[in-house]
Amino acid sequence: MRNVIVKNIARADAATIGLLGQLGVATVHEAQGRTGLMHPSLRPIYPSARAAGSAVTVSCQAGDNLMVHAAMDVVQPGDMLVVTTRSPSTDGMFGDLLAESCRAHGVAGLIVDAGVRDVAEISAMNFPVWSKAICAQGSVKATAGSVNIDVVCAGALVHPGDVIVADQDGVVVIPRESAQEIAQLGEARRQREERSRERLRAGELGLDMHGLRKLLSDLGVEWIEGPSG
Amino acid sequence: MRNVIVKNIARADAATIGLLGQLGVATVHEAQGRTGLMHPSLRPIYPSARAAGSAVTVSCQAGDNLMVHAAMDVVQPGDMLVVTTRSPSTDGMFGDLLAESCRAHGVAGLIVDAGVRDVAEISAMNFPVWSKAICAQGSVKATAGSVNIDVVCAGALVHPGDVIVADQDGVVVIPRESAQEIAQLGEARRQREERSRERLRAGELGLDMHGLRKLLSDLGVEWIEGPSG
Amino acid sequence: MRNVIVKNIARADAATIGLLGQLGVATVHEAQGRTGLMHPSLRPIYPSARAAGSAVTVSCQAGDNLMVHAAMDVVQPGDMLVVTTRSPSTDGMFGDLLAESCRAHGVAGLIVDAGVRDVAEISAMNFPVWSKAICAQGSVKATAGSVNIDVVCAGALVHPGDVIVADQDGVVVIPRESAQEIAQLGEARRQREERSRERLRAGELGLDMHGLRKLLSDLGVEWIEGPSG
Amino acid sequence: MRNVIVKNIARADAATIGLLGQLGVATVHEAQGRTGLMHPSLRPIYPSARAAGSAVTVSCQAGDNLMVHAAMDVVQPGDMLVVTTRSPSTDGMFGDLLAESCRAHGVAGLIVDAGVRDVAEISAMNFPVWSKAICAQGSVKATAGSVNIDVVCAGALVHPGDVIVADQDGVVVIPRESAQEIAQLGEARRQREERSRERLRAGELGLDMHGLRKLLSDLGVEWIEGPSG
Amino acid sequence: MRNVIVKNIARADAATIGLLGQLGVATVHEAQGRTGLMHPSLRPIYPSARAAGSAVTVSCQAGDNLMVHAAMDVVQPGDMLVVTTRSPSTDGMFGDLLAESCRAHGVAGLIVDAGVRDVAEISAMNFPVWSKAICAQGSVKATAGSVNIDVVCAGALVHPGDVIVADQDGVVVIPRESAQEIAQLGEARRQREERSRERLRAGELGLDMHGLRKLLSDLGVEWIEGPSG
Amino acid sequence: MRNVIVKNIARADAATIGLLGQLGVATVHEAQGRTGLMHPSLRPIYPSARAAGSAVTVSCQAGDNLMVHAAMDVVQPGDMLVVTTRSPSTDGMFGDLLAESCRAHGVAGLIVDAGVRDVAEISAMNFPVWSKAICAQGSVKATAGSVNIDVVCAGALVHPGDVIVADQDGVVVIPRESAQEIAQLGEARRQREERSRERLRAGELGLDMHGLRKLLSDLGVEWIEGPSG
Repeated sequence: MRNVIVKNIARADAATIGLLGQLGVATVHEAQGRTGLMHPSLRPIYPSARAAGSAVTVSCQAGDNLMVHAAMDVVQPGDMLVVTTRSPSTDGMFGDLLAESCRAHGVAGLIVDAGVRDVAEISAMNFPVWSKAICAQGSVKATAGSVNIDVVCAGALVHPGDVIVADQDGVVVIPRESAQEIAQLGEARRQREERSRERLRAGELGLDMHGLRKLLSDLGVEWIEGPSG
Repeated sequence: MRNVIVKNIARADAATIGLLGQLGVATVHEAQGRTGLMHPSLRPIYPSARAAGSAVTVSCQAGDNLMVHAAMDVVQPGDMLVVTTRSPSTDGMFGDLLAESCRAHGVAGLIVDAGVRDVAEISAMNFPVWSKAICAQGSVKATAGSVNIDVVCAGALVHPGDVIVADQDGVVVIPRESAQEIAQLGEARRQREERSRERLRAGELGLDMHGLRKLLSDLGVEWIEGPSG
Repeated sequence: MRNVIVKNIARADAATIGLLGQLGVATVHEAQGRTGLMHPSLRPIYPSARAAGSAVTVSCQAGDNLMVHAAMDVVQPGDMLVVTTRSPSTDGMFGDLLAESCRAHGVAGLIVDAGVRDVAEISAMNFPVWSKAICAQGSVKATAGSVNIDVVCAGALVHPGDVIVADQDGVVVIPRESAQEIAQLGEARRQREERSRERLRAGELGLDMHGLRKLLSDLGVEWIEGPSG
Repeated sequence: MRNVIVKNIARADAATIGLLGQLGVATVHEAQGRTGLMHPSLRPIYPSARAAGSAVTVSCQAGDNLMVHAAMDVVQPGDMLVVTTRSPSTDGMFGDLLAESCRAHGVAGLIVDAGVRDVAEISAMNFPVWSKAICAQGSVKATAGSVNIDVVCAGALVHPGDVIVADQDGVVVIPRESAQEIAQLGEARRQREERSRERLRAGELGLDMHGLRKLLSDLGVEWIEGPSG
Repeated sequence: MRNVIVKNIARADAATIGLLGQLGVATVHEAQGRTGLMHPSLRPIYPSARAAGSAVTVSCQAGDNLMVHAAMDVVQPGDMLVVTTRSPSTDGMFGDLLAESCRAHGVAGLIVDAGVRDVAEISAMNFPVWSKAICAQGSVKATAGSVNIDVVCAGALVHPGDVIVADQDGVVVIPRESAQEIAQLGEARRQREERSRERLRAGELGLDMHGLRKLLSDLGVEWIEGPSG
Repeated sequence: MRNVIVKNIARADAATIGLLGQLGVATVHEAQGRTGLMHPSLRPIYPSARAAGSAVTVSCQAGDNLMVHAAMDVVQPGDMLVVTTRSPSTDGMFGDLLAESCRAHGVAGLIVDAGVRDVAEISAMNFPVWSKAICAQGSVKATAGSVNIDVVCAGALVHPGDVIVADQDGVVVIPRESAQEIAQLGEARRQREERSRERLRAGELGLDMHGLRKLLSDLGVEWIEGPSG
């Protein structure tokens, strides 16, 4: 296998990325037909973490963050680092020094299907990170890997330049080519949900709003009075 | 298997439920002989979550929240939704729109042995939820299930109308018939603990307060000086 | 197997313990050659938890905290309780009453490779705890165990009197004999990191700061332009 | 909580139990509307394990098998022991001596939502056991519990006298009252499956046999040729 | 998202697939630079399971095997079914009737990142299956999905027509385009390993065979005599 | 941290090791007061695996088996390799070539708190291995570690030269100094168990054999007739 660092990638436009980020993971995931969601084992290191950006992908040996350093040479402001390891690991692939470097270069956030450390410091910097573990175990810088190749991260396929949206609900990947369309579908969905929200707030039931009473009846579900009826 | 929605259930009185909620999970669990605790994999979505109410139980196909909508038709203010799936799943069974509906109808909280999404919005509403996963994956509304039948949720048996108490320590089920007795036993326990607390705060040791020195000796535990003694 | 309570243990000096605590888990772990880290399943019960102290070790039957009470008889201000069970368990081995007792006797914190309960109350007291579960299930006080013997806690070997440092990144054990040396190595490391931080903040890349470009080249990693280059 | 040993329980008739056992877990689970399945973490200790019988339920303190011994006093030939612990545990609750005792008293098998040991010896005896762990850690005999009360085992509710069917596919509980009906439904299902099997063996597709082509079309699934079409 | 069934896919030649299968997972994984390995949670349902074939990929709703039936319409003798679900699930997606159908149509085996049932019957047929769970919970046939699109299965990206090799060591994916090259590299590796095997069998040490003594010395590893030296 | 290869270690005598191996894990674990058991996540790669020997301990970087090769230089016939990694990993640390080397040098078996590969070949050689994963992912040979230092393996402390006994029930460590005493205690226990076995086989109950009826009564457990009594 040839290891490469791809210097230039195509990115979605900033307005689209911004809109996707405002819509949030759940709405975007729905808008693209419930695809692209990473495994729920990825969690933000602090509750208010929220980010969106273009994926700069990093494929590393487990416990070796050499290629994360290499990726810093090709990031642009607004990018999201998406770091995977070639075998399962909880070792800390990223710490506060790399977070400083990310901040200096405008990186929007980090997704890592492994561990992270210095989380108190990184949280204080308000630099958002999603990881499957918090672990002080550090990394070496010794083994070749690649930057900006297709990777699988927490069960989702990520192409370099895909849009990543992450918040408390998890992490979703939007293929770059369809980002604009998904943003529009998502915005339409958000508006529909806003109208639903008003009706539900006023006390209307989902059963009535979605016309589900007939479905329940068709499925043979029976309404019975119960002991105190 | 017949699927039913039981419209009326017997509930414990509000004063008892209120007292059980103030006592909290650990004290109530002790008061009823260490029974009825759900599995610790259920966690609150925000640290200050705390709730108590009468169980309206919901049995769903995994990934299908049709019956949660059905349950909203039979809830009363102060009820707790207890949602289970018929096979293991982390899909999001509940989101912010359902939380709005719960708020509108006075539901006190949600226990779900599966996933939840829109947790930032639900936390901002201060609507308490305990789940085993946070996951943006949405649900369909297609398969029959039941409301207000006996269910097993996170390892605990719940009858409709049982009292649910939930806080940072987890979730406990109190059978409706014994709720009043358990509340009294719990209050007595709380008062005893308050007295113990004062003594411990003053520096008395548990060994002396509980008379455990003799037990240690009977068990053959030896006190030895150690290297620097 | 003989069960003992060792009354006196050798401890590191307070200044060394204080310095190790300021350095934090990640720096200390690096300073001692990446040894002594407990498994990342141990997590603090509240995000700002941070503590350091001398290990008073406790070996308990699962679900039985008799020996934790016994340990309270031998603790000194500044000690950390390190509690293990003889088989895997998530039962709550510690609650708010024991936390009051710890506070009264100056205990700095608790590490427990099992469960803890009353976490809202303990968090409000600002008493730091690291555990692998939060669980209301209480303990009995019936079975012999030992205090201040060598124990394995969450995969790490702990001798009585070893220094324990714990924060959001996890828990690390520093052998008492090498604590002073590790504190010095850690402080030197911290200062080096501070200088690195300044350079990274100014935009310098880790690739250049650590001289990694040649390594990438030696490893055969190729830089290529990419689709939009 | 009162602890009891219920000496007499109602049981299903032997012919029904025998038929359910022949049908196996998957067929019986289908026949009763996909209810009553235990969690897949329960696995047989040897591949050919297969058993059916009337549940004698045992509720134990974790790590304490006193009540398993008590249960031996009330078993009858053909019964299945169903052992649960009051908090999660992997300790070995059962070993070869208890297996000898079970054999002597005609017990058909053991379901335990905890650990088992002496599995080489128990396998050599051909005594079937389903457990969530294999673990040499032994039990004490010190704490009260109950025999023949309702229990939750691996997520399924079991009443004393319910029929338990277990094989390589897992463990399913059939309520005693419906056992005969479920056996008949299961037998009918088995015969239907036998006819399906012949048609599938002959090369007919499930798509055609179940009439699913129209459903695919209604769902909007498109058939496309593909690169080499 | 459009759901499709792609009828024709390109496949590697049978000789190459056969050779890859003989080489086995570990050798093939090495030969392609340690890429393409599925997560070790996938295990064979019987120890001697071993298979290789061209991937026919299936993307399903969790708990719904409609698309597995659709896939049977496009398989060719020698294909391997690779079944994924759109959210995590352990439900049984495949049973003995589908195994009969696979046998009738020459399918070489099944990889499923979910559950399987009827494992006694499927094992008796000697039809090889790798799954992450064994679970009697059945599937519905109700929701659209796709056949022969790119999928992520147990963490590995699979394109339709890629070669799948599976044995006791796990499951590996070989991109179709490089299958022939990997087979050759793998065969060369196998021959080198055969020569190594002979030398090791004769007592030569890996340290000497691989020239590692100097590396140990360069790394600063010291040889010391020890207590009984 | 200094990395060392300790060439000579003290070992228990062969007769003691042989007797401990015959007694098996469960009996030995009991004989030494239920200490020294490794975590049940370690499982044998084939059911009949059974071994005992003197521990040659190996501490490795995760994913790096250089030190396993180094250990082969100091093993003696009858030794057991005990391999740990410095952070959690499932990578395959051992394969069939190392198994050939072990066979050539008389190594009795392998305990590894990580992964193993080539399990079909190793099983065919009848070389016993206990691991926490089966995984084709291979190792590099690049990082320093140690041989024959104290290690923690799967939660148990192992000193070089301690006796390791492993079978289907798991893995137990017996400190070398107490091996002879534990073997005698274990043999006495085995004989007692043999007598118990005869009585249980004859139908006597554990309740009577261990005099537990009075204990049940003292604990307040009530015998009641039940519905069909």
